[in-house]
Amino acid sequence: MAKDNKKQVEQITDMEADFAQWYTDVCKKAELIDYTSVKGMFILRPYGYALWENIQKTLDARFKETGHENVYLPLLIPESLLQKEKDHVEGFAPECAWVTFGGSEPLEERLCIRPTSETLFCEHYANVIRSWRDLPKLYNQWCSVLRWEKTSRPFLRHREFLWQEGHTMHETAQEAIEETERMLHVYADFCENVLAMPVVKGVKTDKEKFSGAEDTYTIECMMHDRKALQSGTSHYFGDGFARAFDITFADKNNKLSYPHQTSWGLSTRIIGGIIMTHGDNNGLIMPPRIAPIQVMVIPIAQHKPGVIEAAGELVSRLTAAGLRTKSDTSDQSPGWKFAEYEMKGVPLRVEIGPKDIEQAQCVLVRRDTGEKEIVSLDKLEERVRETLDAIHHNLFAKAKKNLEEHTFSAYSLEEAKEISQEKGGFIKTMWCGDLACELRMKEEAGMSSRCIPFEQENLGETCPICGRGAKKMIYWGVAY
Amino acid sequence: MAKDNKKQVEQITDMEADFAQWYTDVCKKAELIDYTSVKGMFILRPYGYALWENIQKTLDARFKETGHENVYLPLLIPESLLQKEKDHVEGFAPECAWVTFGGSEPLEERLCIRPTSETLFCEHYANVIRSWRDLPKLYNQWCSVLRWEKTSRPFLRHREFLWQEGHTMHETAQEAIEETERMLHVYADFCENVLAMPVVKGVKTDKEKFSGAEDTYTIECMMHDRKALQSGTSHYFGDGFARAFDITFADKNNKLSYPHQTSWGLSTRIIGGIIMTHGDNNGLIMPPRIAPIQVMVIPIAQHKPGVIEAAGELVSRLTAAGLRTKSDTSDQSPGWKFAEYEMKGVPLRVEIGPKDIEQAQCVLVRRDTGEKEIVSLDKLEERVRETLDAIHHNLFAKAKKNLEEHTFSAYSLEEAKEISQEKGGFIKTMWCGDLACELRMKEEAGMSSRCIPFEQENLGETCPICGRGAKKMIYWGVAY
Repeated sequence: MAKDNKKQVEQITDMEADFAQWYTDVCKKAELIDYTSVKGMFILRPYGYALWENIQKTLDARFKETGHENVYLPLLIPESLLQKEKDHVEGFAPECAWVTFGGSEPLEERLCIRPTSETLFCEHYANVIRSWRDLPKLYNQWCSVLRWEKTSRPFLRHREFLWQEGHTMHETAQEAIEETERMLHVYADFCENVLAMPVVKGVKTDKEKFSGAEDTYTIECMMHDRKALQSGTSHYFGDGFARAFDITFADKNNKLSYPHQTSWGLSTRIIGGIIMTHGDNNGLIMPPRIAPIQVMVIPIAQHKPGVIEAAGELVSRLTAAGLRTKSDTSDQSPGWKFAEYEMKGVPLRVEIGPKDIEQAQCVLVRRDTGEKEIVSLDKLEERVRETLDAIHHNLFAKAKKNLEEHTFSAYSLEEAKEISQEKGGFIKTMWCGDLACELRMKEEAGMSSRCIPFEQENLGETCPICGRGAKKMIYWGVAY
Repeated sequence: MAKDNKKQVEQITDMEADFAQWYTDVCKKAELIDYTSVKGMFILRPYGYALWENIQKTLDARFKETGHENVYLPLLIPESLLQKEKDHVEGFAPECAWVTFGGSEPLEERLCIRPTSETLFCEHYANVIRSWRDLPKLYNQWCSVLRWEKTSRPFLRHREFLWQEGHTMHETAQEAIEETERMLHVYADFCENVLAMPVVKGVKTDKEKFSGAEDTYTIECMMHDRKALQSGTSHYFGDGFARAFDITFADKNNKLSYPHQTSWGLSTRIIGGIIMTHGDNNGLIMPPRIAPIQVMVIPIAQHKPGVIEAAGELVSRLTAAGLRTKSDTSDQSPGWKFAEYEMKGVPLRVEIGPKDIEQAQCVLVRRDTGEKEIVSLDKLEERVRETLDAIHHNLFAKAKKNLEEHTFSAYSLEEAKEISQEKGGFIKTMWCGDLACELRMKEEAGMSSRCIPFEQENLGETCPICGRGAKKMIYWGVAY
């Protein structure tokens, strides 16, 4: 009998000792993910997928509120279609997985598994857009995409990952730019107000922008280890793809014009961001507004009469109040259960035992602070709701503090290098706008440009890398 | 200026003259689907995808009510993994699309795009099932799968299609069989009470069952043209896959055992079924409980003061009542709008014009019968709800009548052939259980076995094909 028949709550690596190992331990032991026999491909287990479902549901409602409709386009792209836009194919072809056989027949033209779907959307738009009356087209797709990466890490870098990709077409450049900004703000608001992750909003440099885009807007988050995570991007394409795919429409003056295009995406990568923003040495901490289980009810001395029933009643009451609540009445000890749901990051634990039942009370225990509170049962729903809200705000404040305390201004390349090595975090400098300086920062200080933030500050008149005139303030960082 | 700037409501082919052409006309002109440059792959346009979203939402809630959890497994299966279960690989390998290159590197082992995911689930189950405490595992996955079919038709046969696939593991054969039946009943109830499609429930013959299954249960629906559509299947695997993949668990006596397995799936094919069950010569008819738009409000003489506002108020009221309602205030004529939303099969139209406003009324027009009713505005929600319900019941009754009037008993092969040629529909006969007779029915009468229905009748003692002793009554039909 080699197999255990009890699941163990196992120790995870100390996050300050080895953050990368802590991260993979948490992904595995909180049962978010499992490995497979295909390198770089992961299984999203029920708890991990439930988190993605909540992300989907929340974002999808916001997309629909802003007028978007969902569609589904094919998984496979003919090589000739991918090649229609030059910059785009250069960016993606090296990462494509290629289908060359259908059954036992070799294909006449090989097909790539979509790494992103601009080309397919353009082919469809060319069919369905005829007049200004058909615009805007505001489409979104939930699907999986595939990029043949060399290395992989749970959530952060999968060969296959789940995401949504919005693709929109507009009459004018201005409308398309407004859409690009609108969707970035949707992402930013979602990150901050749902995931409790503060963001820096800005524009990518030419080097870092999406292949084929005129501009890429981004939200950048700071992880617990002070590295950056690009958490959502929104691209403005101008009419470049429309020209390449011959998408035209009769405008209000009955003149043939090219529409202006955007795309924007957010992926399961954000789950990695949630873990690395909020987690601690006991495991995950789920932001309450997205947590698959918001409240876990643990019966104490559950063999005593009435305890399991009382726990069940708390679950019913909280579920009826719209809170995602479960209880664990298995024969594991309360201590085992506490550790298990701490590992899984359930934001709030409710304990109820014989003494509590006698006193018509229960005990709330916060995952973020460990604080305990005795709550009278007639105040249950109210206090649970308030506490979940307090947890959200505390998580956001902690993450914001981390971001603010580890964002530094630097006035020379040397200084930037020193700060990066000694403290990590985001480093703000002025920048001349030249690729050469961006490459030098990468080579000498190991940092890539994160974004040119919308909120600019004037840190001086010259680029600290080359000494020439500065155009903008820019954020640098070591990124996932 | 070659392109039209007005969308035309075009004529569709008469369904009695050419049902196949009527079908593809409806798919295209109701804007459910678009073609792509990859043969056999289709685009689900917003209206088609919205229908699938409603199907997903409804079924997913039922899966969760019955204790299932969603997961996501990889898109790609290594050839060696697919080969582990002999019957399974024989059934699916000829239809697999094979990935042979990642970027510019040839792969060491080729990977197939999942045609179904039993093998991946088994690999994962082998990792996570250790003891009876880990059972049952009740997993479901929403995803797309790929089967390299030679021919294709919108919804009915795509090379890539969307579906859900449930995969469950149980301690005992009995529990697994109960699950197989339970999920078939979930599908049957969904078809009948949500999609208004009556079903015949039964078991597939060995010839028609899923590759690798011990038993396949099916629901069979009859289309308007009297052909059969297999609309959902549920498979019992016994422990065959568990043995092939070495999935074992310590049972309650601490003895290593093999778990028993099921899988069950329903796909976008069902959308083809909805179209071919309920549609008519004016286009689609959407069953109200799943319709993306349940009520379309059309303002009459909308240039007159107050009309557009009154239409907007109806939309607000009906939306607040939980009904999926839209209005069309474009500058198209009311006649154009009537035809457009008839084509799209919106179950109920509400008209409101100046005269109606004066009289505090509106006009309801049913898509299924064309009946008009003047309704006082203070009864709006109530009458709309009742009418949508009446439409559901009428659609179901019509489809049930079609099924019953075109289900025949036959007592000889000759008679079966005649009925099939002259009337079409389902033909019931007794059957000896032999493959030879099943093949002969196919060859001589052009009908495949649909199922051995759960509700058996005794039509005699002998198999009408071979004259030997009969075991069961079986349904035959020409199938999509």
